[in-house]
Amino acid sequence: MKYCSTCGHPVEQRIPEGDNRHRYVCASCDTIHYQNPRIVAGTVPVWEGKILLCRRAIEPRYGYWTLPAGFMENAETTVEAAIRETVEEALADVNIEGLYSIIDVPHINQVHMFYRATLKDGQFGAGEESLETQLFELEDIPWDELSFPTVRKTLELFLEDFRKDDFSVHVKDIRRPMPLSSEKY
Amino acid sequence: MKYCSTCGHPVEQRIPEGDNRHRYVCASCDTIHYQNPRIVAGTVPVWEGKILLCRRAIEPRYGYWTLPAGFMENAETTVEAAIRETVEEALADVNIEGLYSIIDVPHINQVHMFYRATLKDGQFGAGEESLETQLFELEDIPWDELSFPTVRKTLELFLEDFRKDDFSVHVKDIRRPMPLSSEKY
Repeated sequence: MKYCSTCGHPVEQRIPEGDNRHRYVCASCDTIHYQNPRIVAGTVPVWEGKILLCRRAIEPRYGYWTLPAGFMENAETTVEAAIRETVEEALADVNIEGLYSIIDVPHINQVHMFYRATLKDGQFGAGEESLETQLFELEDIPWDELSFPTVRKTLELFLEDFRKDDFSVHVKDIRRPMPLSSEKY
Repeated sequence: MKYCSTCGHPVEQRIPEGDNRHRYVCASCDTIHYQNPRIVAGTVPVWEGKILLCRRAIEPRYGYWTLPAGFMENAETTVEAAIRETVEEALADVNIEGLYSIIDVPHINQVHMFYRATLKDGQFGAGEESLETQLFELEDIPWDELSFPTVRKTLELFLEDFRKDDFSVHVKDIRRPMPLSSEKY
């Protein structure tokens, strides 16, 4: 951020009065531009004991397998976001069975939330952001070709719970060294 | 948003290629400025069967009682945000017992997340954003003076579960008509 989105003047980084963190503040109109984590919402879509995965047609991690998930949009709920992403990436209509995993990823300012889901009719396909989609038996999950740590973590938890037939909600975090450019925040 | 935070030129609202939603897009440098929901994280802090509430010293809802909660910051986890807000607003150190409620509030682009927590040593006080803090017996919760619908909902659920001594995770949403200014998003 270099310019104020309210008035177009340059912003500076400083700690506003009454605050204790560096923020982008407009030097002209004094607007404080807060920056906050974003939610990635998705599903673990199941059909007849198999899990539906999508092979990514976009960067990052082009060609790797993922659970359907993406950035939550304004004016929707986390459940609606998870259902929408499953339609968009896997052309699959799902029933939501319950919240499954919340994985904080603080070094990239994201919170990933996955819901357990069941395909409504077994239909699926490759949406615009997927090269292909496929139902995997649990023992055939392509562990070496998964896209993101949160997908891997969620699938690991899911397999464990699936074998016990006992699903609870998991809150986890995945930490990496903070990027240099974010050190001030 | 009126100006591009990257280059300072005016933005326009249009649907970018490959997208299906109106976004703020810079007419000069083509940067797309996505806007996403924010997370409010907090706790239900308990001490000897009582719940710690804070009376707000800031707007909105000045003077009303709330659970300690606030906007999650970049570079922290939801648990860290919930603990931090409890320190800031109630001067209380807590142990987190588990995720409790996730309440989507789509008309204001927020997701509220409350963790069950126990005071570490029974100590608490009024932080800068609180007029006072107080431990309430469950039958004395000031229902008519609560600050926000998500606080009320979380407390209603908590009382019910407390009486059963069985706490699960609750995913809910609170919907209101969408504000006119957000109709395009």
